Amino acid sequence: MLTYNLKPHTDTPLYEQLIRNIKEDISSGALRSGERLPSKRSLADNLGISTITVENAYQQLNAEGYITSAPRRGYFVADIQSFRPVLPEKPVPSGRTEPADAPLYTVDFSAAGTARENFPFTVWARLSRAELSGEPSRLVSTSPGIGIPELRSAIAAHLQSFRGIHCAPENIVVGAGTEYLYGLLIQLLGFHRIYGVEDPGYRKVSRVYQSYGVPFRFLPLELLGTDPETLAETGIEVLHTSPSHHFPTGRVMPIRERNLLLQWAAGNDRYIIEDDYDSEFRMVGQPIPSLFESDPFGRVIYMNTFTKTLASTVRISYMVLPEELMQRFQEQLSFYSCTVSNFEQYTLTRFLSDGYFERHLNRMRNYYRAKRDRILRSLEESALSEHMRIRREDSGLHFLMELDMKISDDQFRDRCAANRIRITPLSQYYHDPASAPQHIFVISYSSLNEEDLPEAADCMAELLR
Amino acid sequence: MLTYNLKPHTDTPLYEQLIRNIKEDISSGALRSGERLPSKRSLADNLGISTITVENAYQQLNAEGYITSAPRRGYFVADIQSFRPVLPEKPVPSGRTEPADAPLYTVDFSAAGTARENFPFTVWARLSRAELSGEPSRLVSTSPGIGIPELRSAIAAHLQSFRGIHCAPENIVVGAGTEYLYGLLIQLLGFHRIYGVEDPGYRKVSRVYQSYGVPFRFLPLELLGTDPETLAETGIEVLHTSPSHHFPTGRVMPIRERNLLLQWAAGNDRYIIEDDYDSEFRMVGQPIPSLFESDPFGRVIYMNTFTKTLASTVRISYMVLPEELMQRFQEQLSFYSCTVSNFEQYTLTRFLSDGYFERHLNRMRNYYRAKRDRILRSLEESALSEHMRIRREDSGLHFLMELDMKISDDQFRDRCAANRIRITPLSQYYHDPASAPQHIFVISYSSLNEEDLPEAADCMAELLR
Repeated sequence: MLTYNLKPHTDTPLYEQLIRNIKEDISSGALRSGERLPSKRSLADNLGISTITVENAYQQLNAEGYITSAPRRGYFVADIQSFRPVLPEKPVPSGRTEPADAPLYTVDFSAAGTARENFPFTVWARLSRAELSGEPSRLVSTSPGIGIPELRSAIAAHLQSFRGIHCAPENIVVGAGTEYLYGLLIQLLGFHRIYGVEDPGYRKVSRVYQSYGVPFRFLPLELLGTDPETLAETGIEVLHTSPSHHFPTGRVMPIRERNLLLQWAAGNDRYIIEDDYDSEFRMVGQPIPSLFESDPFGRVIYMNTFTKTLASTVRISYMVLPEELMQRFQEQLSFYSCTVSNFEQYTLTRFLSDGYFERHLNRMRNYYRAKRDRILRSLEESALSEHMRIRREDSGLHFLMELDMKISDDQFRDRCAANRIRITPLSQYYHDPASAPQHIFVISYSSLNEEDLPEAADCMAELLR
Repeated sequence: MLTYNLKPHTDTPLYEQLIRNIKEDISSGALRSGERLPSKRSLADNLGISTITVENAYQQLNAEGYITSAPRRGYFVADIQSFRPVLPEKPVPSGRTEPADAPLYTVDFSAAGTARENFPFTVWARLSRAELSGEPSRLVSTSPGIGIPELRSAIAAHLQSFRGIHCAPENIVVGAGTEYLYGLLIQLLGFHRIYGVEDPGYRKVSRVYQSYGVPFRFLPLELLGTDPETLAETGIEVLHTSPSHHFPTGRVMPIRERNLLLQWAAGNDRYIIEDDYDSEFRMVGQPIPSLFESDPFGRVIYMNTFTKTLASTVRISYMVLPEELMQRFQEQLSFYSCTVSNFEQYTLTRFLSDGYFERHLNRMRNYYRAKRDRILRSLEESALSEHMRIRREDSGLHFLMELDMKISDDQFRDRCAANRIRITPLSQYYHDPASAPQHIFVISYSSLNEEDLPEAADCMAELLR
């Protein structure tokens, strides 16, 4: 008869203690496969506990497969021995620390975040509260995989009024971030296509392609301006590009290249992913027309995000698919659930439909223009002024600064870092930094600390020597 | 000299009209490449508008690449002709309607949603409001790619107290839905691995693997119980499984098979994805221990979601990676932004830390147990009673119903549908439905309409004949 020393007045219920004891005996082999267990009543009597307790323990052991039951014959030890893996001690979780935050810089020319204090928090919180006080059922209903219709209609209306883009709400796909949407596009267009990324460019894009294991090539920006044949020779079938505002050069793609790209894609089963990030913050003149709108062939996929224009609070991006691709999307990928919660979809819908987003963009554009002007003035009044030339300052939230210097870009960057100034050479955004233009730096100013800038600029002038 | 008929008192500003006219002339060839444009002053005089207006128009045309400027020489028409694609009329967006909602059923035995009315909306809304009234800066700070530390700590604490799982918060990865996490795992483990899905099984899993273009195989459930060699012969390297509660059979994997699986994976660079969905709703006895916790080899990836236990409002899932995989994740995939907004991460953190989630689960378990009992009683009191046998009713939010019938499963399903009853044969979840067990149906009861059930059950008894 099984005899265990159960302790009635502890935190662990008796039946758990019993289960643990029997499991140990089965695992150690003390109870052998096929052996009959004592009846519930006799075990209960032996251990001085209730039959119900034994009953519960046997049921649990049965559910986990340690014992089996045979009707009217009782319970038997199951055959778990033959496949029992040799169990080393389970390692204790390492307590490995997470990657530390980036070291703190006093002045960080590489922080691309939007200025936190500008998130229209009060309005957003008010709309969120309104949503929470409204009809709860719509918050717990399942969203279509491509996003709720109300949000897609609001995005379509915004695109029309703000970007001159005409598209149907049912051609819009909403998702949790552009990186997620890149992944969906690879699944849609195919893993064996050759993808092209601009060189220089935003490094995350090539990292996504690399992570998905798809073939991709770096397309030197100069090649965009040649001819369709030269482009065709690269072998690229899907080109990722930001025509309205290239990162990091700030370049705007001229109409000639836009036409060339469309011609390259037309009729050849090639596609262009137009990443329109940052296009809202053109500082001078009208927005640059989108490639999507001038594409009559259904070859351009338009993509943009609210994460950059609002805040990381709003983890929502979207893409507009041409008709034929959208049909394929519905066939192949509509089984995916939407990655954005209803709550945030509805709140953003209100934010767009009530005009807050366009007002926010206009306010932000003025804010950033003023901030850029102050920063340029600050640089011009600093000791750095006579060693620098500013370029591409009109097209978005960064510009280029060329410096007269004898040391290498990396040396300068390291010297700056030692003085708690972070600055990134343009060459870092090239696939091959060595062959890139030197002595040009990318200045992101959207969240730059202005207070310490004059001192930092004077310091940089010293560091140039 | 260019002469256009500009209209001063319309909605379109003069400079936009001027831009449009010049663009048309360049596109049509009326203005040829290389041609010099009139000076700003003379064009302004000619059109009776201000020089500033011409200046703005020229700057925009320059930015878009229609014209180029040469210092002190003026503006010239750019060469856009050579690559101008032949533009057909842009098709009008189709107005294609979106896929219609599923037809309405009076009684739907296949709806797996959680009962909407049970989402703890009041508490959730209160915590959301508290979050909105709190420190805004944390809502607009960038979350680590794997999720905010507070949420991961809360999840680790929950796993320990509710599931007996010991894991470090830094081994948890938070993402917007399990489908998204499956995709991350493919990127982590490799596109050339052979993935295995249980047959029968949850169809979305194989659809994800298919969509990612990775090789995958259907593993008949019976094979799990054989021996490591037979498993090895399938060629599967990464097995997706739900040991605590298999869908759709409701089967609990016995300890013998668990040990076998661990032995199969150990030391062979094989992995097990333990999808623990629904494990919270075991109706009898203790929860089944997780495979993750009994794995000493670092071969099991644990995965679960809040989307099913709370509501689609909460689009948050997570996985726990063994140490070695987590290190690889940090190296390869930490560049990805987190797909869940800070706002929802913080709200869920409060929900977990303040004990609401475990209370919610306990309440839900009682609610579902009572609901299941009423439904079973309802079925037993119906005319269907003498033709049915119920199985696996203890392990989650669905059970199996075997029916005595002469017609085929599909015929019965169609007859039911014609009577606005939706029911899915178990065979539908098999890769090859023809070779599957027949006359067994999967009954999901979590959101079942009880009111119309008695009538529906009587109707089904009629339809069996």
